[in-house]
Amino acid sequence: MRMNQPDNSPLLTDLYQLTMAQAAWKGGQSEIEASFYAHFRENPFKGGYAVACGAASIAEYIDNYAFSDEDLAYLQELPAPGGAKLFDPEFLKSLKTWQLSVDIDCAPEGTVVFAHQPILRINGPLPQCLLLETPLINLLGFQTLIATKAARVCSVTKKPVAEFGLRRAQGPNGGSLGSRAAFVGGCASTSNVHAGSLYGIPVSGTHSHAWVMSFESELDAFRTYVQSFPHNAVLLVDTYDTIFGTKKAIMVAQEMAARGDKLLGIRIDSGDLAWLSIKARQLLDEAGLPNVKIVASNDLDEFTILSLESEQAARIDAWGVGTRLAVAFDQPALGMVYKLSAIKRPGDERFTTVLKASEQTFKATLPGVLASRRYYDQEGDGHAMGDMVYDTLLPPKNNLIIDPFDPHRQKNLSKCSHQELLAPLVRKGKSVEDVPNVFQAQENARKSIQLIPSSNRRLLNPHTYPVGLEKQLLENRDKLLRLHMKSAR
Amino acid sequence: MRMNQPDNSPLLTDLYQLTMAQAAWKGGQSEIEASFYAHFRENPFKGGYAVACGAASIAEYIDNYAFSDEDLAYLQELPAPGGAKLFDPEFLKSLKTWQLSVDIDCAPEGTVVFAHQPILRINGPLPQCLLLETPLINLLGFQTLIATKAARVCSVTKKPVAEFGLRRAQGPNGGSLGSRAAFVGGCASTSNVHAGSLYGIPVSGTHSHAWVMSFESELDAFRTYVQSFPHNAVLLVDTYDTIFGTKKAIMVAQEMAARGDKLLGIRIDSGDLAWLSIKARQLLDEAGLPNVKIVASNDLDEFTILSLESEQAARIDAWGVGTRLAVAFDQPALGMVYKLSAIKRPGDERFTTVLKASEQTFKATLPGVLASRRYYDQEGDGHAMGDMVYDTLLPPKNNLIIDPFDPHRQKNLSKCSHQELLAPLVRKGKSVEDVPNVFQAQENARKSIQLIPSSNRRLLNPHTYPVGLEKQLLENRDKLLRLHMKSAR
Repeated sequence: MRMNQPDNSPLLTDLYQLTMAQAAWKGGQSEIEASFYAHFRENPFKGGYAVACGAASIAEYIDNYAFSDEDLAYLQELPAPGGAKLFDPEFLKSLKTWQLSVDIDCAPEGTVVFAHQPILRINGPLPQCLLLETPLINLLGFQTLIATKAARVCSVTKKPVAEFGLRRAQGPNGGSLGSRAAFVGGCASTSNVHAGSLYGIPVSGTHSHAWVMSFESELDAFRTYVQSFPHNAVLLVDTYDTIFGTKKAIMVAQEMAARGDKLLGIRIDSGDLAWLSIKARQLLDEAGLPNVKIVASNDLDEFTILSLESEQAARIDAWGVGTRLAVAFDQPALGMVYKLSAIKRPGDERFTTVLKASEQTFKATLPGVLASRRYYDQEGDGHAMGDMVYDTLLPPKNNLIIDPFDPHRQKNLSKCSHQELLAPLVRKGKSVEDVPNVFQAQENARKSIQLIPSSNRRLLNPHTYPVGLEKQLLENRDKLLRLHMKSAR
Repeated sequence: MRMNQPDNSPLLTDLYQLTMAQAAWKGGQSEIEASFYAHFRENPFKGGYAVACGAASIAEYIDNYAFSDEDLAYLQELPAPGGAKLFDPEFLKSLKTWQLSVDIDCAPEGTVVFAHQPILRINGPLPQCLLLETPLINLLGFQTLIATKAARVCSVTKKPVAEFGLRRAQGPNGGSLGSRAAFVGGCASTSNVHAGSLYGIPVSGTHSHAWVMSFESELDAFRTYVQSFPHNAVLLVDTYDTIFGTKKAIMVAQEMAARGDKLLGIRIDSGDLAWLSIKARQLLDEAGLPNVKIVASNDLDEFTILSLESEQAARIDAWGVGTRLAVAFDQPALGMVYKLSAIKRPGDERFTTVLKASEQTFKATLPGVLASRRYYDQEGDGHAMGDMVYDTLLPPKNNLIIDPFDPHRQKNLSKCSHQELLAPLVRKGKSVEDVPNVFQAQENARKSIQLIPSSNRRLLNPHTYPVGLEKQLLENRDKLLRLHMKSAR
């Protein structure tokens, strides 16, 4: 049995993508060129924004895309009713020689993005776009969710946040991609050594209760630990009693100081973190140890940290955040979707735009080869003023954006500069050369978040940031919606 | 950059496990033998039980455990303050020659387990037990969560449930391990082809809205699709209008029947699933197509399926469940913990039992080399009567179980047969030969769930299944708790 395999397999997709690809191949549809876009319908965590993440792993997935003989042998054996096989051997042979030729444009990692705007666009042969749907939205949706959660946690504190959720993550690789995404969103480090080795992000850690319990006394446990780490030990003081534990850590810190070593900090992992941190700070200060830091952990998230810092005046110098960040506990899926928006059939000169109608306009998709741009204030502090979604087949003639669900709400952004949100990621089936690395992504997130007005970023009831449609796109959407309604009567 | 790596790395752990291992190595603690156990404190989803899953991937993780030169080179470069290195080269050299020697006993996959009982026990050298903590509870916690969610979904319907959550899963491998766990919990198939190829579980699928939208007409889309799948096509009928779509599927089904082919089913993915399925069933029956099945999907979970089947009389023959199962939406982390419960220091004849006290007895851990057994009624239908947690160092003298949080509640299970819950999984650092496969695990789940009284399994306010302590274990726990309280005063 092979359990824990690398995740670049082209089989990492839904079966129906492969059956549709075969049906297209048999039905002469393989030559159709398609344009799809990915978006989500609600900003996660009842918040006002999201932080895009996942482009780097998409680039790697694409660059390693190839069906192995083993993959094809597996597919060949899949049964259909009546003793037949599901897949035609000739179709599978054609997969063997597949060269991806898709173009992908994606929001660079760290870019703030919003509901109802394209954050990824893919153009290419229909069967390729179908097979890539599942892995692309898996990679982009999950990592965007975690980067966003990290950004929210980091938004409420100036102190460093260490992510340490690997043990509670959804699978090992949910842990590692999650640790990377948390770093992009603003975390200072991860406890996950594998993520550190894969992505080069900083790793950090203290020690566990079991360490203390494995000794005859807490003092022995602390003394033995700091022998190995004379300048960067953080002692966990709550195994038996936080205040007694703090006093023992102070004894050890004074012993260390006497021999020229230095205790970095203590960690509190239970109890009333505000009261305990204030009391521990006082004890440390009285002992002449003002530089020993206090780290806190225990089911923290943006709301508990905000309360501890603002209304509880906790004396905490660094935060450790695990479960609630690692699985995005209060909303563990982003609901990313991937929709066909234009097709070019063999012989067609240009794309035909399409949409998926719905009884609710809210759920209807947008037609076109879509893109999005962000407008920035040029008269004041340069903050973001609004985003325009447009169809690249109908280049914008002005800078008016129109609310897609309430067309009377319009905003003219003429006096602004603007920047495209999607950047080339894949061209002709290969990733571009300058995909930003994880450090660039973190820096991009920091800058991109700062440019969004704080009213759109606050945790409680944030204002909705304006994401509107370009006028021709709106008119085309409404025309197609009316056509659908007529044909459905 | 390497993004999507195999997940058997020994670096898949928290940094503090490695720093503690070095501190133990330097401090002469490496020879300590430890016993840890894993458990959770609340049954997930406000339910009455969980379904253990993860033993097979733990076995694979253990069997592939080895530090590569690349791993050690990475660790060697990790910095400490002041230009020093975090790890001692001699310590890292010792890791290179590590041979795991741990013994692991674990609830076999599919076994029903409950809060407050050990579901995994590991005995071995302290540093090995520490390093394995993070990956073991990651693998066991996540997969147990998904198997449990799948069991709940499958418990409310006799119809087959297909899992198709890969696109919303937390990372690719969260998807694949999750698809496997969902199968263990009772799902009939997965859409995830990678999971199918890795684990041999059945794969299934239909087609997407994009398929229909890529054709000039829905009818063309249906006709082209069934050409490729003359006996197992399921047509998605709600791209434009579910009833009109059903009528087109009926036309295609009749064309197929005329040439000796057979439409397997239709799928409805939006709208009022009860009303639409009743109407579609009527249209299909009137058209002489009683064997064409109706598949339903759209944000389903155990509660919506229960309502559709029981109070709404929906005519649905198979269910497709995605997001809410794939990420365990209503509780995305199980909160599995791993606690030191006994140690044997060099020179000791036998284990010393330890516990982690807490202000709340509820959070205190249990001391001993722990095990659990399940008692079955021998006078009636053989159902499970209660579980006893005991310390193998103090073999049970009778069959009395005592509520750990209310010692006046006791239950005598003398007239019952009993069975151990934990089975050997790893011996001397290698997995045993007969780890059950995924099909045996699914069968084990089916039987194990049936043996639990239905009052402990219902979705709403389930009775608490009795999990009690053996008398000597309770007395030892209480003695150690009193000692801790005294020393903390």
